[in-house]
Amino acid sequence: MLKEAISHRPGDNDAYACTNEELHIRIRTKKHDIKEVSLLNGDPYDWHDGKWTTNTVPMRKSGADQLFDYWFVSIKPPHKRLRYGFLLNDGIETACLTEKGFYDQPPLDDTGYYFAIPYINNIDVFRAPGWVKDTVWYQIFPERFGNGDSANDPEGTLPWGSAPPERDNFFGGDLQGVIQNIDYLVNLGITGIYFTPIFKAYSNHKYDTIDYMEIDPQFGNKETLKRLIQVCHEHGIKVMLDAVFNHSGFYFPQFQDVLEQGEASPYKNWFHTKEFPLVMEPKPNYETFAFEKSMPKLNTENPEVMEYLLEVGRYWVREFDIDGWRLDVANEVDHAFWRKFRSEVKAIKPDLYILGEIWHDSMPWLRGDQFDAVMNYPFTTNILNLFARGAISVQEFMENMTTVNHMYPKNVNEVAFNLIGSHDTPRILTECSGDEDKLKQIFTILLSYIGTPCIYYGDEIGMSGPQDPGCRECMKWKEEDQNKNMFEHVQKMIRLRKEYPLLANEGELHFLSSDSHESCIAYTKSNGETTILVVVNISDEEASYHLPFHLKGKKITNIYTGEEYAADSDDLTAKIAANGYALFQF
Amino acid sequence: MLKEAISHRPGDNDAYACTNEELHIRIRTKKHDIKEVSLLNGDPYDWHDGKWTTNTVPMRKSGADQLFDYWFVSIKPPHKRLRYGFLLNDGIETACLTEKGFYDQPPLDDTGYYFAIPYINNIDVFRAPGWVKDTVWYQIFPERFGNGDSANDPEGTLPWGSAPPERDNFFGGDLQGVIQNIDYLVNLGITGIYFTPIFKAYSNHKYDTIDYMEIDPQFGNKETLKRLIQVCHEHGIKVMLDAVFNHSGFYFPQFQDVLEQGEASPYKNWFHTKEFPLVMEPKPNYETFAFEKSMPKLNTENPEVMEYLLEVGRYWVREFDIDGWRLDVANEVDHAFWRKFRSEVKAIKPDLYILGEIWHDSMPWLRGDQFDAVMNYPFTTNILNLFARGAISVQEFMENMTTVNHMYPKNVNEVAFNLIGSHDTPRILTECSGDEDKLKQIFTILLSYIGTPCIYYGDEIGMSGPQDPGCRECMKWKEEDQNKNMFEHVQKMIRLRKEYPLLANEGELHFLSSDSHESCIAYTKSNGETTILVVVNISDEEASYHLPFHLKGKKITNIYTGEEYAADSDDLTAKIAANGYALFQF
Repeated sequence: MLKEAISHRPGDNDAYACTNEELHIRIRTKKHDIKEVSLLNGDPYDWHDGKWTTNTVPMRKSGADQLFDYWFVSIKPPHKRLRYGFLLNDGIETACLTEKGFYDQPPLDDTGYYFAIPYINNIDVFRAPGWVKDTVWYQIFPERFGNGDSANDPEGTLPWGSAPPERDNFFGGDLQGVIQNIDYLVNLGITGIYFTPIFKAYSNHKYDTIDYMEIDPQFGNKETLKRLIQVCHEHGIKVMLDAVFNHSGFYFPQFQDVLEQGEASPYKNWFHTKEFPLVMEPKPNYETFAFEKSMPKLNTENPEVMEYLLEVGRYWVREFDIDGWRLDVANEVDHAFWRKFRSEVKAIKPDLYILGEIWHDSMPWLRGDQFDAVMNYPFTTNILNLFARGAISVQEFMENMTTVNHMYPKNVNEVAFNLIGSHDTPRILTECSGDEDKLKQIFTILLSYIGTPCIYYGDEIGMSGPQDPGCRECMKWKEEDQNKNMFEHVQKMIRLRKEYPLLANEGELHFLSSDSHESCIAYTKSNGETTILVVVNISDEEASYHLPFHLKGKKITNIYTGEEYAADSDDLTAKIAANGYALFQF
Repeated sequence: MLKEAISHRPGDNDAYACTNEELHIRIRTKKHDIKEVSLLNGDPYDWHDGKWTTNTVPMRKSGADQLFDYWFVSIKPPHKRLRYGFLLNDGIETACLTEKGFYDQPPLDDTGYYFAIPYINNIDVFRAPGWVKDTVWYQIFPERFGNGDSANDPEGTLPWGSAPPERDNFFGGDLQGVIQNIDYLVNLGITGIYFTPIFKAYSNHKYDTIDYMEIDPQFGNKETLKRLIQVCHEHGIKVMLDAVFNHSGFYFPQFQDVLEQGEASPYKNWFHTKEFPLVMEPKPNYETFAFEKSMPKLNTENPEVMEYLLEVGRYWVREFDIDGWRLDVANEVDHAFWRKFRSEVKAIKPDLYILGEIWHDSMPWLRGDQFDAVMNYPFTTNILNLFARGAISVQEFMENMTTVNHMYPKNVNEVAFNLIGSHDTPRILTECSGDEDKLKQIFTILLSYIGTPCIYYGDEIGMSGPQDPGCRECMKWKEEDQNKNMFEHVQKMIRLRKEYPLLANEGELHFLSSDSHESCIAYTKSNGETTILVVVNISDEEASYHLPFHLKGKKITNIYTGEEYAADSDDLTAKIAANGYALFQF
């Protein structure tokens, strides 16, 4: 038994309350090392005749990655308290892992040895809004989705789609353009829109906020936003706005005031200034986002700044009934601010979704007191590494996905914001060198995976484009410019995801070993009664995929094609088309 | 290289801000497996010619326990941001560990691979009050320390020390008794008093609070407390009170009201009631501490209860200038409550010490937003297992202590509340079967260890007593009942701890391998220039302890005896008396 590889620490992804009554407990062991794991557990105060009262429940393997096996169990302690240890058996020896280390036999004279869940306090349980896990998002870059009102076009606006997107050109996209195209979105089937910033700013991307309390006049006004949100809500579509609280834009009046007045400015403590007057050359003497002197970092520890930004957070929820906040560069802002932010905005709308932009390990923001979710870039990276770059094998893809799934609690994974590209990256079709089959496969995975999927506007009609600004082309509204076939695939996958809750977040996800087939990604979503098996064949040849299940006597449905099969034996093989996919339900 | 054993996750004890500028980074590897570790790091936005700018700093081994080696480095990122990975060398192969796994060579085309410290935000840095790490605590159980005012003695009070302590007898101890004996405490040298509860309650231990806003009349009144705190402060002694917020006492009027009025009570939501009317038999139909029906669990998620308890927290700080709160059963109360508690009491007194009673892994409470410290029971357990029970070897003792040290950040360890017994446990001398040499050794360790030591009243004069109530005997004030020799040892160790900041928390602690001597605990406290070596010989025979240092030409002082030696070679051996100890400075 390789004890050095065995890892568990209560809290975070290893032991957490999933509801007010239910705990999830996981342990990690060296791959293929341990045969059986069970959880020895009891209430810490339940003693009889000087001996602690315990019971033992088996754990099941929930996944394996390159180095480790992961084990899982769900348990409901009758009094919301638990002490526990792990009984491990590798076929040769047994051991009991406690908080105090390994023992040959579980010590029962004291509960002090064991791992502890002191008490499940309802208020501490991580809870994302219930609607999120069933939502299919659509990301809109407002300057490029639709021009619904030419009256608000900025000077020099180019005709729609008449030129490649540049850092500083404008095409007149606005909020009215979204309202006008609501039927398109409804027809596609999406149920949430994530808007990149719409507040008053200088650039076409609007990440350089000038006024957090105003709609950019190029996009419309507050009335337009109200109408837009009303229309969306009438069509069952949630609306999420983008907030840049880490730094302001260069033309943010408070920053301009400090630039002009220096130490005399009432806003002198709104930024991280090192000395006065502020200078920008040769290096700024104030802190910035990255080394970008036009993006001064806001001092969110200053109570005035905090109150200003909290009111921004509250205002658009309170007055406009938005459904979510996406928080830009969220991990560079302090945790204390985000705790207050959560508490304030959720007080107005308890089922508001708070989504942080974090590219790295995000556990510290996902403990229930800050964000509901982060943008799942590891998902993106894995998709790109396999489909676009060919940098990893199918096995590595499945292992990497398993690693990420086990880095977070299950209820956190259910609301992760899964994306395959954005206004910040080359378009996914361009990443895949224009290969439409690959894009279809990617959409198949995106829309059948745990988490909440997001489609970057236009990807569903096969738009392409390199790194920004190239990926920000005007939405193609002419039917002849749209890839109809791609649209129908995405539309169908969205429909299936709604029709079969297992494809969303109802059940549990397990990757199958790539031993079954080296060129097929395969995973099941199962609730214990019904299972959906997703198989994606990345090779250029048809794959014979052996279904490693006892299916004899069952009905198998390919829910994508509608074909049905009666399994007459346990030895079943499915043909998966070259660069194709299948979704079997049984 | 055993990759499965290598463990690092940013945050908590593995990577944390120690100050607003300085990061500590640790990694764990299989014991004896890795020869060299260094930290590859850089600012995430510092790119030149398409390549990330990095530098490499060596890490040093900070300890080893039964299974693992631990590596450490301190680093000051110039822009408060860091991306980093680990370069590992086991003498055969090298590898680079990133957030995305292991690579043969560090990938430098993207910082997305690496571990991240996004930005050191000042407000998120764990900061305990500066005075705590230099404090020597003294725990007083007020009913048994001194009877300074017989006018407040309860009916039936027994003459001081005239009977064994029982669950329900009283000896008249009070706050005036502490004031009267302040010179004793000053002479001993302690600089902080931790009082078990002094609020109005029924029992002699006062953990069954009736009124959180009143001093128990048996102990005095608010004027007495004010005088006591004034006297303590005048003598450089801090005062910490004990708060029981997890549950109230049975006679708490709000609970009595619910018992009487049931659902009609305005306090019906103050507790975790399952139905009305409340019944206590056969089982209580409300939640309790443990299964104790007379200790109803308070509903700290109810805003009324929260505000009531927060005002308790604020009141005694605001009006009485107390210096610390010790929080009973702290881990069964919700995190949300403790975050509010911290923010409210620190707003009144920023250098207030918040100490939680937690017996288990306490990392989730020690992230800077809740407690400053927890009671270090693992320290206690290790001391008992070695000295009292003989259950572990010297090597295991040192390994276990190393494990605990590496479970928490260094600045957390510096304020850990180290205890060797309390009102809840048999007295330490009794645990050691009356062996005074062992007790002296234990005091030597307690008072030269990292953290903030606490002496349970009377242990310093060799009082004994079994599990409570036996450990709560009246303080022995007659000189002939006091072990003078023990007192002088404790007094001297306290004096040395003040005189040599290394003995407190100035430097770093390292355990030496028990290969040097199997019966000697040995550790150094060092600031890089000066080192103090503590050696404790647990055997009944004199030990020849070889000093594993290059000391030739240096002066060595036994700071306990004052003896000085000139080292004329690097091959030095010190004689440590049977069951003795020595403290060498060089």
